[in-house]
Amino acid sequence: MNSQKTLRVGMLGCGVVGGEVARLIIANQKDLTARSGAQLDLVKIGVRNLARPNVAKELLTADLDSIVKDTNIDLIIEVIGGIEPAKTLILEALKNGKSVVTANKALLAKHGAELFAAADKGGVDLYYEAAVAGAIPILRPLRESLVGDHIQRVMGIVNGTTNFILTKMDESGAAFSDALAEAQALGFAEADPTADVEGFDAAAKAAILAGLAFHSRVTDSDVYREGITKITDTDVAVAKSLDLVVKLLAIAELTNEGKISVRVHPTLISRSHPLASVREAFNAVFVESESAGAMMFYGRGAGGAPTASAILGDLVAVARHRVSGGLGPRESDYADLGIAPMGSTKTRYLIRLDVADRPGVLAAVAQTFAKHDVSIQTVRQTGRGDNAELIVMTHKATDAALASTVSDLSSLDAVKDVASVIRVEGMST
Amino acid sequence: MNSQKTLRVGMLGCGVVGGEVARLIIANQKDLTARSGAQLDLVKIGVRNLARPNVAKELLTADLDSIVKDTNIDLIIEVIGGIEPAKTLILEALKNGKSVVTANKALLAKHGAELFAAADKGGVDLYYEAAVAGAIPILRPLRESLVGDHIQRVMGIVNGTTNFILTKMDESGAAFSDALAEAQALGFAEADPTADVEGFDAAAKAAILAGLAFHSRVTDSDVYREGITKITDTDVAVAKSLDLVVKLLAIAELTNEGKISVRVHPTLISRSHPLASVREAFNAVFVESESAGAMMFYGRGAGGAPTASAILGDLVAVARHRVSGGLGPRESDYADLGIAPMGSTKTRYLIRLDVADRPGVLAAVAQTFAKHDVSIQTVRQTGRGDNAELIVMTHKATDAALASTVSDLSSLDAVKDVASVIRVEGMST
Repeated sequence: MNSQKTLRVGMLGCGVVGGEVARLIIANQKDLTARSGAQLDLVKIGVRNLARPNVAKELLTADLDSIVKDTNIDLIIEVIGGIEPAKTLILEALKNGKSVVTANKALLAKHGAELFAAADKGGVDLYYEAAVAGAIPILRPLRESLVGDHIQRVMGIVNGTTNFILTKMDESGAAFSDALAEAQALGFAEADPTADVEGFDAAAKAAILAGLAFHSRVTDSDVYREGITKITDTDVAVAKSLDLVVKLLAIAELTNEGKISVRVHPTLISRSHPLASVREAFNAVFVESESAGAMMFYGRGAGGAPTASAILGDLVAVARHRVSGGLGPRESDYADLGIAPMGSTKTRYLIRLDVADRPGVLAAVAQTFAKHDVSIQTVRQTGRGDNAELIVMTHKATDAALASTVSDLSSLDAVKDVASVIRVEGMST
Repeated sequence: MNSQKTLRVGMLGCGVVGGEVARLIIANQKDLTARSGAQLDLVKIGVRNLARPNVAKELLTADLDSIVKDTNIDLIIEVIGGIEPAKTLILEALKNGKSVVTANKALLAKHGAELFAAADKGGVDLYYEAAVAGAIPILRPLRESLVGDHIQRVMGIVNGTTNFILTKMDESGAAFSDALAEAQALGFAEADPTADVEGFDAAAKAAILAGLAFHSRVTDSDVYREGITKITDTDVAVAKSLDLVVKLLAIAELTNEGKISVRVHPTLISRSHPLASVREAFNAVFVESESAGAMMFYGRGAGGAPTASAILGDLVAVARHRVSGGLGPRESDYADLGIAPMGSTKTRYLIRLDVADRPGVLAAVAQTFAKHDVSIQTVRQTGRGDNAELIVMTHKATDAALASTVSDLSSLDAVKDVASVIRVEGMST
């Protein structure tokens, strides 16, 4: 290549992911140049704490604002995470005509529309493959490869921490608290695990996936969210006995009424479902579309190197556009579909009840389901002295009907406890 | 959108895939317009036989050349397949400034360089996601999502016919000929199954995958090819007893010497490998890269609707470029890596020998392996009257060393027959 173009890159943040991105930009400069058509020079890294032993001192600055205002910088990588100051900095960068690559799912799920509008106005790219499922190429397939198809459903294991915990519970019979402690000891869960175990992280990703799949604007506040903290070792054991496994799934699907049902909750799936074999901290996204049928994308969902791989892929893409003209696809929200209320969402359910072991109890329980039009597929009763455990698998019913059923069951004299209610997916009826 | 742009589409060929593409372009016009930014009008379809009951008569023409020369046509879809007349027609279309979407793996694997050069010269796009693994987005992830990473190995089940046959042999113990007959009866294999069962189809796809993964020019003639016609029910049963499964894999990997080993052959993999659970006519591509680690892409590899999904995704992409400027990534062959001779390729092997059951035979066999520096991992001997069956699993050895070993084994007095030699992949040593 003659008259090599040079593009100058500024990075906001330099934690585990940022450090790896910086290392790779320098180590792989030749390849990145050949692949993007421009020499990519990392010229500034903005960090709060300037003590970074693995990064050349002269690159570091504590003045992050100076990076997004630097007229010599062409491309920005944002790996600070969180809402502020990331949002203000990215908006400023886009306004100043810099393309931005970010891994910030929380920000995109909350303020995506504002950011995409700013990218449009600035005539620049905003890329974010690393925001969902780390290294797994999933956003580009959804927004480019499958753009000629009609996606019907996306179901993903998009949070490695919770999948690690649920895998441990499934494979060793551990209680939630012990599995969480193991995940923390191994660095798969943070000291405050709330964002992961309560499903906030997965909900942000669900919003991003739903928006891309259904060409509509979906934010984190549209996502129904339920974490895994109430899943017990008994739930996991019962699931196992039924050849099912508990996974925390991010689900986005088109309802029969043409709305988007988008939710994150513990979900029972058959052990023969492709998602069932996704173990430990791995991620996978299962996509069903009208023409292409069922697909699955599997790989590492987090970690410095995998996330850096996704960021560098985006960096080459936005650099290419700088060199040869054009821009990536803009936000696509033309379909403008509404969000289905959770109450109208239909799934199957597995309900575990502690009941008195005496005649007429099963009839009373069955009547309660029937009253709310919830059809029972199977019932298993196990005696326990004076009590019995009833395990009920339903056919598909709305969330509202199921909630009313559970409420009525709780007030039945013979029902000591509604021990658990878990949704079941991946089966047809 | 105001002042809607219209792009006129011509299609070459109208078989199972083309018919579905035509139907979807018309049925989904609103969505395709919103997603591409242009109204896509299918204006001409070139076919040899004009009797096409499902396509509007006025679209059909037997003069295919008139389509690629029509100055009113902007985009061409090629679904004729084969080398000629597809090659001449595509070159003419590219020369005339039309972007082309094709599913033609055979043509790309043989004449890719010439076609890409013509696209470059014409300043237009040449897209071909449907050429490998049907509906599964794999080419775009390789050439865009992973462009900032270093891919080390690609292993794919990219031929549905052979995977269907091998699945039947594995699950029911059927002989190759019976499984082939079943595949033919169900429409999964053609009357003349040569292209599939002898690995020609997979070899074309292997060449395309290798070229993209390693940024080098790879053609079908670079691919070592071995089909599945010699795989017996005994091979499959022995594999099963060792917790292995036989798959026809397309493999492209970077050798320690920085060359590309690219090959298609029956391969034994562990039943716990993600590719092992890919059944029947499904396809999957397993990718290992430096930063992202292991990934797998799974879905339908063939059929009218899945292939049409990939073609329409490409059609929207090339239409977008027409509307908003820019072009997709060009051919990337800067790395210019050489092809490793098959003799230098290292894998493990499972060798099945019929030997005389007498003292000293195992020693003679073991000595023959040792003479060629092929290290044995395990040997299993089963008596059969005067004869015995020896099943030898080796550590990694070069193909050349293994071939010499087999040749020497054949000439040993005590060896009645080298019943089979199958390569083993997906294990580390």
